[in-house]
Amino acid sequence: MMLKELREQVYEANMDLPKHGLVVFTWGNASQVDREKGLFVIKPSGVDYEDLSPENMVICDFEGNKVEGDLNPSSDTATHAYLYKNWDNIGGVVHTHSSHAVSWAQAGRSIPCYGTTHADYFYGEVPCMRGLSAEEIEEAYELNTGKVIVEGFEGKDPVAQPGCLVRNHGPFTWGKDAAAAVYHAVVVEEVAKMALHTEQLAIAAAKPIDDCRAPQYLEDKHYMRKHGPNAYYGQGK
Amino acid sequence: MMLKELREQVYEANMDLPKHGLVVFTWGNASQVDREKGLFVIKPSGVDYEDLSPENMVICDFEGNKVEGDLNPSSDTATHAYLYKNWDNIGGVVHTHSSHAVSWAQAGRSIPCYGTTHADYFYGEVPCMRGLSAEEIEEAYELNTGKVIVEGFEGKDPVAQPGCLVRNHGPFTWGKDAAAAVYHAVVVEEVAKMALHTEQLAIAAAKPIDDCRAPQYLEDKHYMRKHGPNAYYGQGK
Amino acid sequence: MMLKELREQVYEANMDLPKHGLVVFTWGNASQVDREKGLFVIKPSGVDYEDLSPENMVICDFEGNKVEGDLNPSSDTATHAYLYKNWDNIGGVVHTHSSHAVSWAQAGRSIPCYGTTHADYFYGEVPCMRGLSAEEIEEAYELNTGKVIVEGFEGKDPVAQPGCLVRNHGPFTWGKDAAAAVYHAVVVEEVAKMALHTEQLAIAAAKPIDDCRAPQYLEDKHYMRKHGPNAYYGQGK
Amino acid sequence: MMLKELREQVYEANMDLPKHGLVVFTWGNASQVDREKGLFVIKPSGVDYEDLSPENMVICDFEGNKVEGDLNPSSDTATHAYLYKNWDNIGGVVHTHSSHAVSWAQAGRSIPCYGTTHADYFYGEVPCMRGLSAEEIEEAYELNTGKVIVEGFEGKDPVAQPGCLVRNHGPFTWGKDAAAAVYHAVVVEEVAKMALHTEQLAIAAAKPIDDCRAPQYLEDKHYMRKHGPNAYYGQGK
Repeated sequence: MMLKELREQVYEANMDLPKHGLVVFTWGNASQVDREKGLFVIKPSGVDYEDLSPENMVICDFEGNKVEGDLNPSSDTATHAYLYKNWDNIGGVVHTHSSHAVSWAQAGRSIPCYGTTHADYFYGEVPCMRGLSAEEIEEAYELNTGKVIVEGFEGKDPVAQPGCLVRNHGPFTWGKDAAAAVYHAVVVEEVAKMALHTEQLAIAAAKPIDDCRAPQYLEDKHYMRKHGPNAYYGQGK
Repeated sequence: MMLKELREQVYEANMDLPKHGLVVFTWGNASQVDREKGLFVIKPSGVDYEDLSPENMVICDFEGNKVEGDLNPSSDTATHAYLYKNWDNIGGVVHTHSSHAVSWAQAGRSIPCYGTTHADYFYGEVPCMRGLSAEEIEEAYELNTGKVIVEGFEGKDPVAQPGCLVRNHGPFTWGKDAAAAVYHAVVVEEVAKMALHTEQLAIAAAKPIDDCRAPQYLEDKHYMRKHGPNAYYGQGK
Repeated sequence: MMLKELREQVYEANMDLPKHGLVVFTWGNASQVDREKGLFVIKPSGVDYEDLSPENMVICDFEGNKVEGDLNPSSDTATHAYLYKNWDNIGGVVHTHSSHAVSWAQAGRSIPCYGTTHADYFYGEVPCMRGLSAEEIEEAYELNTGKVIVEGFEGKDPVAQPGCLVRNHGPFTWGKDAAAAVYHAVVVEEVAKMALHTEQLAIAAAKPIDDCRAPQYLEDKHYMRKHGPNAYYGQGK
Repeated sequence: MMLKELREQVYEANMDLPKHGLVVFTWGNASQVDREKGLFVIKPSGVDYEDLSPENMVICDFEGNKVEGDLNPSSDTATHAYLYKNWDNIGGVVHTHSSHAVSWAQAGRSIPCYGTTHADYFYGEVPCMRGLSAEEIEEAYELNTGKVIVEGFEGKDPVAQPGCLVRNHGPFTWGKDAAAAVYHAVVVEEVAKMALHTEQLAIAAAKPIDDCRAPQYLEDKHYMRKHGPNAYYGQGK
């Protein structure tokens, strides 16, 4: 069995996806490349996470052909393959349907950089790719998903923006290895959630919502109930 | 030590509050009454849940005076006492700061009955009480909280509407015993969350959001990738 | 005791509902059919999940009559029965009050197909049924719930759209067996949540929210603090 | 090894951050001061929580210089140091990227006091600081973050408002020790979430959303299905 250590790493990366709450059922996959051999290891298609093992990971080449393995590789294999083939500075790829990232993809919007949580890992927005045409979908859906991503990164650096949203679909992320791609998948989900709430707060800020303010005397009472010389909450220690 | 069994029940009810995700730190309390003796058992004030035991529960009378216990009773004791005193058909009371229920209380809004999850337990809205005046807060805050609740239920049946929101504060619920009051606290939090999202969807429905629709050909592709004679997702079983 | 294996499967399907976070307390039920015998197995009504066992599941016929079991069957039994009776290509039915799906039902809205997570399992929207009339509710509430669903699927294929929302109530899903119906219940909750957020993002996109953008120099600083030759976050490995 | 007990306390406080759901990966840090020695103990930079121990905590002085430790201290050390140096009535500092607090920081908004959950711990709003200028970021980012906080608290009492939001970044909280600072970090995240939903409910209140109301006859049916003489939900006990 080839690429024993790589199988282990890809297995671990896949198992981390449900652990981080990014994946429901089998809705995600992680892969990692061996640049010298021109091969990558990827999760088999539609297999429950509890049934995964390093041994049932599948080895493919950059055309997406299976090289070793009893099971079919992930249905997104051709997308992974195209990214490895075109970007020689990435080592791992992850795809998930994590909830908030998918919501941005479904809204067809790139995630703007609203703060440092985002800026720590993405230089600029998490870009949303254009939708595939009916012809592209019909012809070679997963391969063309890879092509649309590479096209969308023309003029961008996939190392500085280690992920994107595929329109009406969900996030793809990458990194120096599968573990880094998983890390970036967590980042994308976190900043997607924060950015949604940021926009809601920005919109709310324009409205008169003074009715919700607690009256000053209620504030005084509650603060003083727990603090200061006359506090009476708790056991008085 | 008095009321051994009641202490056990109140202890269990209090422990269920963090288990149901209704309470952070010490922000909640449950009590249950012994109608024959005219006493109730309540959680001590500001004690960590992990340090609670049936033995350190506190016994109080309907004026809120401590009858047995080494620790101070919950700072909300006078509210519990007033409800037991005025409503002889309730047996348990719970107060929490559960997230979505508090949000409605802070918005000063009653939760409308939008569906059967709500109607299964509350006949009509979960009513939001009027705010206390500065004088009421100054004079006897917790007692007057009870008075405002009883006033707000004039013409209502506390059995058919087993809970309310205290404005700018949070939910109080009740029931035939402490366990039922906990149950209703879970119901209020659940319907508060559902009703928030219901309103957001009703507002969104008025906007043109067709841009988010997945194109028909993408729908076709994904459905057919997993279903029908040419499906290729998974292991072909 | 009849249908031993089926009892096991229905028991497992019911136990999976709280495990997937779809059910609070007893607010859900799953059933599965034996087509040869014309019977189905369903959860008993209002029994805690921890007290369920294969043995206390209840067997009913397609008129909703109890055939075997000590306990009352789910109060929604007549709905399940009517679906089995009218649709001979389904094998399992599930009803829950999962939070986001209920919110769509309460808003009276079908969930549009906004992306591939949805398209992978539902061909077209998750349709919201019309509300029952006062007469239908009075006459035979649960049976008529089934009738309203079957009526709402005229011209639709229940295999290609394996679930719906009952207005002001919540989701019903189905599939080839109870496990598939549970799977579709998870899908409906997930796409309900994603679609809510998708619409919120689509609405937000129309507003000027540039004030939230992180300034370029803050982006630069944070990205460079972790990446590039002068990075100083971490242990410099 | 110096400050053995303090190392333990800071270690425990750091470990509590992921336990309370405030921290993903390594995105947070806690410290505590020894006022007599003029030193504080802080988490090392970029080390996984599972690899932390009391022994690998780092000791620094109020200029942010490392005094003892094999590892680099948190990249935010200069901010902690400046707060200890300028506010002699605080004993612990915490920084996180907790989701809802970050959303307010990204929206550039202070969290108003909408209720008692907030008033119990913060006297007045959780203030959002001004953004740093390009020059301040370039010159000494973390030190100037501390300066912007101290400047923002001119005329405020850091004991009565034990935390703030740094614009486009996230929350910093403090207290008499590291454990109190952690406590306040939980409070800020909770009130940030509640205040977001409060505003959404206040906005929704202005819209006609009567379409979502459950019809009276549905309310009647569901309430009576579970309650009253003709109830038939459950096992009739």
